[in-house]
Amino acid sequence: VATKAALSAVKKLHQKKYRDDAGLFLVEGRKSVEEAVKSNAPIQSVFVHSGIIALIPFLGALKNKNVPVYEVSSKELESISDTETSQGIIATVSYQDHTALEKSLLQKKELLVVCLEDISDPGNLGTMIRTCDWFGVDAVVLSKNTVDLYNSKVVRSTMGSLFHIPVLQDVDLPVFIRTAQKNKCSVYSAELSHSVDFRSVKAEKKSLLLIGSEAHGISKGLSALADYHIRIPGFGNAESLNAAVASGILISYFKQQA
Amino acid sequence: VATKAALSAVKKLHQKKYRDDAGLFLVEGRKSVEEAVKSNAPIQSVFVHSGIIALIPFLGALKNKNVPVYEVSSKELESISDTETSQGIIATVSYQDHTALEKSLLQKKELLVVCLEDISDPGNLGTMIRTCDWFGVDAVVLSKNTVDLYNSKVVRSTMGSLFHIPVLQDVDLPVFIRTAQKNKCSVYSAELSHSVDFRSVKAEKKSLLLIGSEAHGISKGLSALADYHIRIPGFGNAESLNAAVASGILISYFKQQA
Repeated sequence: VATKAALSAVKKLHQKKYRDDAGLFLVEGRKSVEEAVKSNAPIQSVFVHSGIIALIPFLGALKNKNVPVYEVSSKELESISDTETSQGIIATVSYQDHTALEKSLLQKKELLVVCLEDISDPGNLGTMIRTCDWFGVDAVVLSKNTVDLYNSKVVRSTMGSLFHIPVLQDVDLPVFIRTAQKNKCSVYSAELSHSVDFRSVKAEKKSLLLIGSEAHGISKGLSALADYHIRIPGFGNAESLNAAVASGILISYFKQQA
Repeated sequence: VATKAALSAVKKLHQKKYRDDAGLFLVEGRKSVEEAVKSNAPIQSVFVHSGIIALIPFLGALKNKNVPVYEVSSKELESISDTETSQGIIATVSYQDHTALEKSLLQKKELLVVCLEDISDPGNLGTMIRTCDWFGVDAVVLSKNTVDLYNSKVVRSTMGSLFHIPVLQDVDLPVFIRTAQKNKCSVYSAELSHSVDFRSVKAEKKSLLLIGSEAHGISKGLSALADYHIRIPGFGNAESLNAAVASGILISYFKQQA
């Protein structure tokens, strides 16, 4: 049984401050928790509604790994859940530690890394991570002002992709880009002006793609560091493309070239 | 001044039943209303917060066209607004009438039409329409079970693109597809299985792209009608691509070929 103190600690994980303190984030919904289990994510505890406990086959595997599984009431679940229509299951999972990867990543011989600058919309960030997963991007790198990766809306909208590919958070992008260039990566910045049609550039074996938010694009500082400035040509009257859609088009092109 | 009866009538437009009865939908937010004005959309009335009325230059143009502009209080605005953070302006706009276009569209010599089957997520539908606008698609055609085009979340997420390109609603897709084929259109259905890499097919001068929802894909009935079945190859572990992202990748490819 989950104690009040345990539930209260879980509830606090909806706030970044407490997540950072505990090094834990929440994964809500059956599909997302299942992806975490399949991906051997470091699950610390699971809270599941008593009504569906018998219907979830992967709980057995968790218990075998000594992960505590707590049966909770509707009211208890509601008190710790962020989503209006909770699907009856929430897990706490340890932050991913990518320190080792951060060092080895840029040494790979072939590489496609996507750097996201200051994306503020959680759903968009989640969709972008999912798109990177689909195309087998080697890593996603987030600038310091990007929305928190462990925000529950981001986690939900990655639909498990957060557990499939490495996502580096809170990265000093100018430093990362310079290091990448020293390691023979070519840097492509997606920008609407002073840029060329993306299909006119060749993707190098080691490529780094910079994508900014739809509202602000890539900052001048980052843009100045890029080797290529590319855009997706528009034919109609829309002012901009959704950032996740733009990412998909560019990543698809880079993967096709590789 | 807006009467209580007028405000009550506007509020009802959040429900499809009343929208259909009145042939009117709501456009909220300064940017979206501005796009409607620029695009000469048939605006019937505008409700604007007294605090910002002096800050909106395009209101003069509306008054010159004899469109009634009502000054409303915060409370009145809240009562008719759907969005939590209303931007202080709401317009009622007549439904678009595409009857004439529906007849002439398929007679064009070059053509890219995007047919969407049963998209249920309003934000996704809006983003897809915006993507079609970006690429200058000739028309977007929606199946009968697609979320209502005039749903306020759809309207908002099109970011004005609804006023830039024709969107045909409530269309019997099997009939539309057969008619298109009689008019020498090639039909490409986006499907994950029994399909080929999209880059292995050539876009014909008259092309029709079928895209389904992420959850259900294209129905068997529609799939059977298609001339080509295409997919976006995946390299990672994600189960699917977001439908708007997938649309963007395919439309970009078809436009590049044309």
